[in-house]
Amino acid sequence: MKGTKGVATVTQIEHAAVTSARANVHSLKTFTFDALPLRLGGQLGPVTLAYETWGTLNEAGDNAVLITHALTGNTHAHDAEQPDDTKIAWWNPLIGPGRFFDTSRYFVICSNILGGCYGSTGPSSLNPQTGRPYAMSFPVITIQDMVQAQRRLIDSLGVRELAMVAGGSIGGQQALQWAVAYPDIVRKAIVVAATAALTAQAVAFSEVQRQAILLDPRWQGGDYQPGHGPDAGLSIARMLAMITYQSEEGMEQRFSRQPAHPVNAGRSPSAPSGYGDLGTRFDVENYLYYQGDALVKRFDANSYLYISRAMDLFDVSDGYPSLAAALRRVSSKALFIGIRSDFLFPAARVRWLAEQVQAVGGDATYVELDSPHGHDAFLKEWKLMTGALNTIRE
Amino acid sequence: MKGTKGVATVTQIEHAAVTSARANVHSLKTFTFDALPLRLGGQLGPVTLAYETWGTLNEAGDNAVLITHALTGNTHAHDAEQPDDTKIAWWNPLIGPGRFFDTSRYFVICSNILGGCYGSTGPSSLNPQTGRPYAMSFPVITIQDMVQAQRRLIDSLGVRELAMVAGGSIGGQQALQWAVAYPDIVRKAIVVAATAALTAQAVAFSEVQRQAILLDPRWQGGDYQPGHGPDAGLSIARMLAMITYQSEEGMEQRFSRQPAHPVNAGRSPSAPSGYGDLGTRFDVENYLYYQGDALVKRFDANSYLYISRAMDLFDVSDGYPSLAAALRRVSSKALFIGIRSDFLFPAARVRWLAEQVQAVGGDATYVELDSPHGHDAFLKEWKLMTGALNTIRE
Repeated sequence: MKGTKGVATVTQIEHAAVTSARANVHSLKTFTFDALPLRLGGQLGPVTLAYETWGTLNEAGDNAVLITHALTGNTHAHDAEQPDDTKIAWWNPLIGPGRFFDTSRYFVICSNILGGCYGSTGPSSLNPQTGRPYAMSFPVITIQDMVQAQRRLIDSLGVRELAMVAGGSIGGQQALQWAVAYPDIVRKAIVVAATAALTAQAVAFSEVQRQAILLDPRWQGGDYQPGHGPDAGLSIARMLAMITYQSEEGMEQRFSRQPAHPVNAGRSPSAPSGYGDLGTRFDVENYLYYQGDALVKRFDANSYLYISRAMDLFDVSDGYPSLAAALRRVSSKALFIGIRSDFLFPAARVRWLAEQVQAVGGDATYVELDSPHGHDAFLKEWKLMTGALNTIRE
Repeated sequence: MKGTKGVATVTQIEHAAVTSARANVHSLKTFTFDALPLRLGGQLGPVTLAYETWGTLNEAGDNAVLITHALTGNTHAHDAEQPDDTKIAWWNPLIGPGRFFDTSRYFVICSNILGGCYGSTGPSSLNPQTGRPYAMSFPVITIQDMVQAQRRLIDSLGVRELAMVAGGSIGGQQALQWAVAYPDIVRKAIVVAATAALTAQAVAFSEVQRQAILLDPRWQGGDYQPGHGPDAGLSIARMLAMITYQSEEGMEQRFSRQPAHPVNAGRSPSAPSGYGDLGTRFDVENYLYYQGDALVKRFDANSYLYISRAMDLFDVSDGYPSLAAALRRVSSKALFIGIRSDFLFPAARVRWLAEQVQAVGGDATYVELDSPHGHDAFLKEWKLMTGALNTIRE
């Protein structure tokens, strides 16, 4: 393995107040390179990507698997010490010896995306020209930029071919972009709950979330101090996001119109604004407050702005004469996984994308998860996910 | 016609900065009564309801029709002078001589709901005990309270029987509540895009909207001065609400991923927070900013909090041993209208409600509007609405 290895960017991790990623701090590696030309113009540098790996790269350099994480995700897709804990590592049940992403066969890599706050260069990173965090002087980044940075990383690791690239949501957008941008080195692309481009409705939900962050007086034009950011705004954004990651059916099953559990009264989370409970508190409200609170403790608000915007801006046809022209480049075996109850990345649109790949001669398979859990099913439905993945097992 | 007529509550209208209701200021009537006992305890008084009427009440007092408006609606369901303008009066195409709600046959009444800001008593009204606006000292009100207040109004007007009660969304909740609470005087109830109770998802969307308002530093615990309220928060709330009033399909047809029209650049609305346009501005974002802006100019933020909460709290079985027990009271002919693409009040749940009324022996009909325009179809799809209404025409 060749490549530059940098110093772990502990400062950045502290900026993001990462509490849930404690398990991976010791194993977090970083790769830094000088400059990345950006899709929307200009360049960013130096750029650091934080990453973790499991398994061993073979001599041919062709047994690597790249796992791409979701919006607020991190590098810790797998925990080798606690492989059965689904809380500690977000794709644990799919990764490990004997599992689909078999670490006894594959060299599995997961990097924190460009713009993130789990060790990679993002808005909370120090701008070397000013010695202060980039904040809103961070450039607008795209999925293309994220993938290009990942390409630099895998090159540095000596990877010559990716046996698989796989991810869900914005991770699925990246997997798709990989298959279009670098068809020569991607053998299989696994695109979960992602589409050719977001719908108007999804962009709209996304912008409402950002506006809530931007409205928070603690946002301060982006120049908040670590630990003093727009917690309430980010919490409201997360509340809305959590609704879009679930489904009417799933929320009804779980919450219905139940009032907040009285047993939790003593340790009920506060509403983001500090005000709430007009008449009563529903269980679903309590849950959303809790989820908002939990994100605030582990995620950077400016990263949220930039990464969610990259999702909005993504259009796989971008840079090509047409969608067909973009998809004609895909020479990987492509597996598209849709989720029946997903309304953020509707299953019908995932299926349609698979059909477009087929229409231009690509080897695409579509599998639909019959889950009521909405978009988030790819982070919950282990049996269904494994079943879907097994359709392209070798 | 008997009843107390009060003085037009111009102060309240100014509080709400009502600019779009200019047409009805001259014709707005008010009715004031001493006290209303409230479903959740306590009482409110004096209570004023602002209303408009069209047509003439007959001697028997049995040709009245009550129209109940939606969340941010007002009394101006019809404009007799400009009956073909759908912007000036929100149900104009359905009301008037020869139309379904035929003002040459019926005495049509539309009152601003309790808690509103178009002339009825609400949070922006002066609390007679303090001489200042109620603001957050306004009690939590329910659909039951709104309907009870309307009952007082129609009694005061000499109405003995309602030929029809009709409304959509929160107006549909009221129409349903009318049929359950006062079956003896309601001949027909027309419940459009409303269900027995909101889903957990709908409550969740609603709470995110309120949190955005409550986060705005200009909300000031509710004690903002007229014209200096939480405009940005209310605007964000409206942006989200507008998404839930439409549908993925409808938004895709209208906006897709188009950038904001350059021709509008000179008069583009600002994002609520004053920040936006990371990378580009999509047409759908421009549209939502515009809608947010438009609501802020005509609606009171505290009214928004209280009325949206009343929607969440509504459960037609409330106060009865069971849903069946509540619905068994319905002796009116009941028409339920669902909208195929409505995800706030899903058509399946409207249909289910109609079936529950049938199951307990009620005379219920269900009609579904085949519209891509989501929840708001009842304010847009005039042909489909008229067709649906005609199924119970006499």
